[in-house]
Amino acid sequence: MPTYRAPIKDMLYLLNDVLKLERYSNLKGFSEASPDIISAILKEGAKFNEEVLQPLNQSGDREGCTRHSDGSVTAPKGFKEAYKLYSDGGWGGLTAPPEYGGQGLPHVLGLAFEEMVTSANLSFSLYPFLTSGVVALLDKLGSNEQKETYLTNLIAGKWSGTMNLTEPQCGTDLGLLRTKAEAEKDGSYKITGTKIFISAGEHDLSENIIHLVLAKIPGGPDGVKGISLFIVPKLIDGKANGVACGSIEEKMGLHGNSTCLLNYDGAKSFLVGKEHEGLKAMFIMMNAARLGVGVQGLGVSEVANQNAADYARDRLQGRALSGAKYPDKDADPIIVHPDVRRMLLDGKCFNEGGRALAYWGGLLMDLAESAESDQERDHAKDMLALLIPTIKSLLTDLGYEIATNAQQVLGGHGYIAEWGMEQFVRDARITQIYEGTNGIQALDLVGRKLPREGGQAIRAYFEMIEGYCKDYGKDYGEFTSPLKNALGDLQQASLWLMQNAMKNPDNAGAGATSYLRLLGYVALGHMWAWMAITSQKALADGVGDKTFHQNKVATARYFMGRHLPQTRGYYKMIEAGSDELMAFPDDAF
Amino acid sequence: MPTYRAPIKDMLYLLNDVLKLERYSNLKGFSEASPDIISAILKEGAKFNEEVLQPLNQSGDREGCTRHSDGSVTAPKGFKEAYKLYSDGGWGGLTAPPEYGGQGLPHVLGLAFEEMVTSANLSFSLYPFLTSGVVALLDKLGSNEQKETYLTNLIAGKWSGTMNLTEPQCGTDLGLLRTKAEAEKDGSYKITGTKIFISAGEHDLSENIIHLVLAKIPGGPDGVKGISLFIVPKLIDGKANGVACGSIEEKMGLHGNSTCLLNYDGAKSFLVGKEHEGLKAMFIMMNAARLGVGVQGLGVSEVANQNAADYARDRLQGRALSGAKYPDKDADPIIVHPDVRRMLLDGKCFNEGGRALAYWGGLLMDLAESAESDQERDHAKDMLALLIPTIKSLLTDLGYEIATNAQQVLGGHGYIAEWGMEQFVRDARITQIYEGTNGIQALDLVGRKLPREGGQAIRAYFEMIEGYCKDYGKDYGEFTSPLKNALGDLQQASLWLMQNAMKNPDNAGAGATSYLRLLGYVALGHMWAWMAITSQKALADGVGDKTFHQNKVATARYFMGRHLPQTRGYYKMIEAGSDELMAFPDDAF
Repeated sequence: MPTYRAPIKDMLYLLNDVLKLERYSNLKGFSEASPDIISAILKEGAKFNEEVLQPLNQSGDREGCTRHSDGSVTAPKGFKEAYKLYSDGGWGGLTAPPEYGGQGLPHVLGLAFEEMVTSANLSFSLYPFLTSGVVALLDKLGSNEQKETYLTNLIAGKWSGTMNLTEPQCGTDLGLLRTKAEAEKDGSYKITGTKIFISAGEHDLSENIIHLVLAKIPGGPDGVKGISLFIVPKLIDGKANGVACGSIEEKMGLHGNSTCLLNYDGAKSFLVGKEHEGLKAMFIMMNAARLGVGVQGLGVSEVANQNAADYARDRLQGRALSGAKYPDKDADPIIVHPDVRRMLLDGKCFNEGGRALAYWGGLLMDLAESAESDQERDHAKDMLALLIPTIKSLLTDLGYEIATNAQQVLGGHGYIAEWGMEQFVRDARITQIYEGTNGIQALDLVGRKLPREGGQAIRAYFEMIEGYCKDYGKDYGEFTSPLKNALGDLQQASLWLMQNAMKNPDNAGAGATSYLRLLGYVALGHMWAWMAITSQKALADGVGDKTFHQNKVATARYFMGRHLPQTRGYYKMIEAGSDELMAFPDDAF
Repeated sequence: MPTYRAPIKDMLYLLNDVLKLERYSNLKGFSEASPDIISAILKEGAKFNEEVLQPLNQSGDREGCTRHSDGSVTAPKGFKEAYKLYSDGGWGGLTAPPEYGGQGLPHVLGLAFEEMVTSANLSFSLYPFLTSGVVALLDKLGSNEQKETYLTNLIAGKWSGTMNLTEPQCGTDLGLLRTKAEAEKDGSYKITGTKIFISAGEHDLSENIIHLVLAKIPGGPDGVKGISLFIVPKLIDGKANGVACGSIEEKMGLHGNSTCLLNYDGAKSFLVGKEHEGLKAMFIMMNAARLGVGVQGLGVSEVANQNAADYARDRLQGRALSGAKYPDKDADPIIVHPDVRRMLLDGKCFNEGGRALAYWGGLLMDLAESAESDQERDHAKDMLALLIPTIKSLLTDLGYEIATNAQQVLGGHGYIAEWGMEQFVRDARITQIYEGTNGIQALDLVGRKLPREGGQAIRAYFEMIEGYCKDYGKDYGEFTSPLKNALGDLQQASLWLMQNAMKNPDNAGAGATSYLRLLGYVALGHMWAWMAITSQKALADGVGDKTFHQNKVATARYFMGRHLPQTRGYYKMIEAGSDELMAFPDDAF
C-alpha cells in the first residue's frame, strides 16, 4: 500500500527562503500569511491529506463511481465523509473571497495545499477544485445577485461546481459547439444539448451541483464568437432541473471521480456576464486552472517518487557494483544501484524544480492582481503568459515520465495493482490531456504568447535571466554558466522561429512542443540556480538545516550537469523544421 | 473499437529488398523460405491475426481471466477457440524443429509473424510464445526421451509451456532463489516453493501445461551457481501433479493473460541438462526471448499508431495554420496540424526503423546458428551481443512512448476505455519490465557485452558502420553523414566509459541507460540509411512502388534531421558521470 508524506519542509523553504513571501506583506491576502500562519496551515493540511484523503486513493480507484438507474451517482466509499471533513475544515475557502466566507489567502499558498491534495488523492481533488474554479469565475463575472445566491454555499462546500465545455463533436475547437440556450420571458434561458467528459458531473457529496455551461444563443454569431456562459443548478429550490447524468465514462484512471455525460433537456439557466462573451469568461479562469493542472502532474509525481524511494531502500536484490554495501544481508537494497538512483534523483530534481516553478507561478498570479505598481503587475503578466502553458505541459509530461520511472523502480511489482504504482501512472496520464492538451499548450505558447506585442514577454524573460546571471555570475558561476548556455539555446530557437514561422506558420507548429520543453528546461534551470544560490548563502551564513541545504546544492549540480544541456537537442528538433512533416502524404502515416 | 492492418508491405520490403533473404537460400531453413512462400505465410498470418485475434483484444482486457475455487483458471471468452485455430493452423510450429512437427523456417520470418500476433493481441500471444520458448529450450538441452515426450505435443499446441523464475523475494537476483528440488530414488525430483508472475501459468486453452522451473537442489553451491532447471508437468499421465495456482495477479494491463502465483508442493519434476547448470540453460534462451519482447514493444506501438492515424484523418477540429484545407467541412481533420503529424511521424519512423532493426536481429540469430563460415557466425554473435539488450530496451521504451503519443492524438477520447488506446499503453508498459527490466538490459550492455573480449563486439560494430558510411558516402552522403556524426558520439561515449568505468564502475551504471539509447539511435540511423539507400536505388532503377519508396526516403530524412542528432544529448548525460548520484544520501531521495 502506498503512503504519502507531504513535503512540508520543501514547501516552507520555497515560500519563506526562496520566494520570501514576507516581502509582500503589504499586499492583499499576504498580510494574513505570516511564516507562522503558513507553517500552521501546511502542517494542518498535511495531516488532513495524509490521514484522510490518501487512505481513500487506492480504494477509490478500485471501487470507482456508481451510476444508479435513476441517474444519480455515488462516489466511492469514504469520499462523502472526507468531503464533509474537507468542507468543515474550511479548506474549500483557503483563497476564496472573505465576503462569502473564504479566507482570502494568497494563491501561492493555496497552490501548496492543492499539491498535497493531488498527491494524496487526485480523483477526490477534482470535486472541490472544480468548485473553486466556479467560485473564482462567479466572483469575477457574476452579478451581485448571482454572487449572493451561489458563493457562500459553494465556498462552504454545501454545494459543488463543474465546468461544461466539451461535446461529442467538439473538444479543442469550441466553435463547433451545438448546445443551445433559448431565452425565456423571465430573463432565464432553456439549455438543451449533450456535454461529455464532465468531471465531478454528478455525485452524492454535496447538496446541490452548480454547472457552468458553454452554449450558443440561437441567432448569435457563428463559431466561438457566439458562445455564452450559463449557470445551470442541478436543483432549483430543491427541485430537479432538466439536467441528468446519462453515463459515467470508463477511463484509464481517475476512477474515483465521476466523469459524466450530462444531458441537458431544457434546463433552466442563467446567463453569466454578457451574451456571446462566454469564451472570454473561460479565458479569465484559464491561468488558474492550467497552473492547477500542472500542480496535479507534480503532485502525482511526488507521491510516486516517494514510494519508489521507499521501495528502493527496502528491497534487497543484487550487490553494489563497487562491492557489497551490506555484506551481512542476503543482498544490498537496490538503492545502491546507480541506475535506480538515477531514476529517483531525476524524479527529485524535476519535482523540486517543478515545485519551485509552479509556486513562483502562483506568486506571479498574486502579483499580477495585487502588486502595487503597474510595472510589477505587467511584469508578472508577461511572465505568466509564458509560464502558464509551460508549467501545465512540462509538469504534467514530467509527472507522467517520473511516475512511469517510479513504477519501473519496483520492477514486476510496479505492474501489480496492489502496490499502487500503476495507479499513479494511470492517474497522471489525464493531466497531459485535459484543460487543453499539452500540444495545445505548446501552440498557445508559440502561436499566441510568443509573438504577442512584438515578443514583449519573451524579451522580458531573456532580460530577467540575463540580469540574474550577471548579478550572480561572479560568485555563483557554477550555476549561472549552464543557465546562460541554456538561455543561448532558447534565444537561438526563438530567433529561428521568428525568422521561419512568419513565412510558414507550420514551422511554428512543428517546433512548438520542443520549444515548450526548451523554455521549460531554462525555467527549471533558473529555479535550480535560484535554490542553489539561496542554499549556498544559507550554508555560508550557517543558517538553517545544513544537510537540507547541502542536498539542495547537490541536486542542483545534478540537474545542471545531466539535464540542462539537453536544451541543445530541443533546439535541433525545432531547427529541423516542418518540410518533411507537412509534405508527407496524409494516407501514408 | 480499434482495428489492425498487418503491415505486410513493409515486412516484405524488409525481408526481400533490405535484408534480401534470398541470399541465404543455401542455409538451413532458408531454402524453404522463397519470396513466394514468405508472402503466402505473411498474408495468411495477417488474415488470422486481423480476423481472429484482434477482435478478442479489447474484450479479453475487460473480462480478464477467472480463477475458480478449485484453482483452475478460465481465459477470456473466445481465447480457447482462437488458440485451437492457432494450433490447427500450425502457427505454433513455424520455426520449430521439423522432426517434431515444426516447419523449421528461419527465425527472422517467425519474428514477422510474432509482431503481428503482439499487435493483434499481446495478452493472447504469451500463451503460444512461452510454449515456443519451452520448445526451443528442450530442443537444445533436453534428453532424447524428454524431446520425445514433450516436443510434439508442445509444437502442436496440445500442451503449452511456462517459465518459472521469479519468487516473492527474488526477481533480478536469482541467487536469492528458495524453491527447492529434492532428489527421489527414481531419478526424479520433488519441487517445493512459490513462484510469482508466471505468465500463462494456469488456463483452459491446452490439455496440459509444462512448467520449466528454476530451483535449488539442497547441498548444492550457494547463489546462482546452485540453480538447476526442471520440467514440471501440470498433469502426469492425466493425474494432477503437486502444482496449483494460488492466485491471479491484478495488473495494470495484459488482463487477457493469466499471470499466476504458483504453489509447488512436492511436485514431481525432471532435471533438464545437468545439476546446477540451470542459469546457463536460461541464458541460452535469453536472446530469442529478449528479441521477442522487443518485438512486442514494436507490435503494440504499431497498432496504436495505426489507430491514431485513422482517428487523425477522421476527426474534424480546428483549421490548418496555413488556412482551411477543407473549407466545405465544419473543420479540418486534425491530421493537418503539424504537432499531430509530428506524433504520428515519430511513431512511424521509430516503428519502421525498429522493425528493420528487430528483423535484422532475427536474421543475425539465424546466421549465428547456421552461417557457413566461422567468421560470419562470429560476426553475427558479436552484433547480437550488442543488439539484443538494445532491441529489448529501445523498442519497448519507444513502444510505450509511441503508444502514449498515439493516445494523446485522440485527446480526451484517448483516455476513455472504449477507444482502446489506453489499453495499448497499459499493455505496452509490461514489456519494459519483464524478461529483465530495461535498466538490467542497459547494465548487461555496458557491464558485460561492452567490455567482453577487450571490446571486440563494439569495435566490430564501429568498423561495420564506418565501412558502410565509406561505401555509400560518395553517392548517399545525405544519409551517411548524419550517421557518421552519431557514430562519433557513440565512439566518444564508449571511450569515456572505458576510461572512467575502470576506475569507478558506478560511472558505467550511471550512464548505462543513456548509452543504450545512444547505441540504439545509431542502430536506427544505420537501418534508416540502409532503407533510404535501398529505396533510392529502387527509385533510380524504376523498380517497385514509387510512392512507397518515396515515403521511405522522406521518413528517413525526417529521422535523420530531427531525431538522430539527439545522440549528442545522450553523450552529455553519460559524461555527467556518477559523482553527485552516488554521493547523495540514501535517506534524502
